[in-house]
Amino acid sequence: MQKTITAALIIIGNEILSGRTQDKNLAYLAEKLNAKGIRLMEVRVIPDVEPTIIDTVNALRVAYDYVFTTGGIGPTHDDITTAAIAKAFGVGLYRHPEAEAALRDAYKSTDAINEARLKMADVPVGASLVPCAATAAPGIHIGNVFIMAGVPRIMQSMLETILPQLENGAVVMSLSITTNLPEGTIAAGLTEIQNRFPDVEIGSYPHYIEGGYQTTLVCRATDASRNAAAANEIRVLIAAAGGKEIAAT
Amino acid sequence: MQKTITAALIIIGNEILSGRTQDKNLAYLAEKLNAKGIRLMEVRVIPDVEPTIIDTVNALRVAYDYVFTTGGIGPTHDDITTAAIAKAFGVGLYRHPEAEAALRDAYKSTDAINEARLKMADVPVGASLVPCAATAAPGIHIGNVFIMAGVPRIMQSMLETILPQLENGAVVMSLSITTNLPEGTIAAGLTEIQNRFPDVEIGSYPHYIEGGYQTTLVCRATDASRNAAAANEIRVLIAAAGGKEIAAT
Repeated sequence: MQKTITAALIIIGNEILSGRTQDKNLAYLAEKLNAKGIRLMEVRVIPDVEPTIIDTVNALRVAYDYVFTTGGIGPTHDDITTAAIAKAFGVGLYRHPEAEAALRDAYKSTDAINEARLKMADVPVGASLVPCAATAAPGIHIGNVFIMAGVPRIMQSMLETILPQLENGAVVMSLSITTNLPEGTIAAGLTEIQNRFPDVEIGSYPHYIEGGYQTTLVCRATDASRNAAAANEIRVLIAAAGGKEIAAT
Repeated sequence: MQKTITAALIIIGNEILSGRTQDKNLAYLAEKLNAKGIRLMEVRVIPDVEPTIIDTVNALRVAYDYVFTTGGIGPTHDDITTAAIAKAFGVGLYRHPEAEAALRDAYKSTDAINEARLKMADVPVGASLVPCAATAAPGIHIGNVFIMAGVPRIMQSMLETILPQLENGAVVMSLSITTNLPEGTIAAGLTEIQNRFPDVEIGSYPHYIEGGYQTTLVCRATDASRNAAAANEIRVLIAAAGGKEIAAT
């Protein structure tokens, strides 16, 4: 039996907290981790404030197997993630020769390399690089923490490099059934099924569509046959309550 | 001078952490709070797990002026937010007569009231109701914590009831300038402007569009004239670097 592997995500950026930018990395990361049997257990969105970054990284890196961060690794004054995480680990920064060479090479033709851009080659002592196809500036791996860019296109590219390095856990299967019934109609029956399937996580998610609410029931478990058995009981429950199954995945 | 008022949001729901559902409440809440001069300082996304909800609510309600939660207040077995928050406050639950009457009335014509639905009338001792136009099941207010639904349409309706009850703080003005320059080109100049405007929060946000990157510079401050002055210096910086201003808001 494969063990449960856990992860947390720290989204670093004033622009998310102000509502200016809608995060697109959480759901993407969650799905990629799910596929490897790694469970995203917690996400924190925090500002570009050094003590907050240090405290959050230190709280989460001892609580979970892996910690991912997004945001704050660019060339400008508000990009303080890497320096803050070095402090979280109690180490200094140094200019990584390989990262520096890649950056100098990337800006060679335009002669646009400068000290601000070279800051992206500064990594904590003991860290390794996370090179990616989307940009010359690397992500960074230190301890169980992976430091990624906030721009989704670059984050996704860095994650491609990171994923093969992660341990595989027990993959959680997911089965979804959408019904026209409101969830309150079948709530008692769902509780009864949940009680008989403690190893299946049953979620009930109402959503509004034009004219009323539908409900999606989601079964999640590492054992595919138990998951399917719970889903089938939910189908019976829906039919017994006079409901229709609108969709299933 | 108005004081700084702070808030945190706790997004409660396995469906967000699994990547199944994309949260839409964070940015909405942030913008509504901004308009009242309340700053969203931290967001945590946590699973439907009682000890986690208790610990998170207790950590954040002492750290911020207001705490908002979304998710987990429906009629099904996985809706455990209200009971967990009652435990966080060390109080019991009781069936609120006004909430019960509203629920019985809402389901009167269909005779569909049941114990699961009445669970949505159970509130912590000492709490008050947050009635809303979108549904008969109320949100809940206890101490400095506001418990809201996860469904965006209902959350937004509950927030309409809550907002007038909140204290007004110093409103942060925001000015945005988008340029065709990559941020690394103007990073040194931005640092210099940031150093002269410590009361203005200057953010630099690259984003990918077809063929390359643009940068949006955002100035945020409670003093409109200082904010405008910083934004003007950024305009001068962009022009001096040979850049174009593509958009401004």
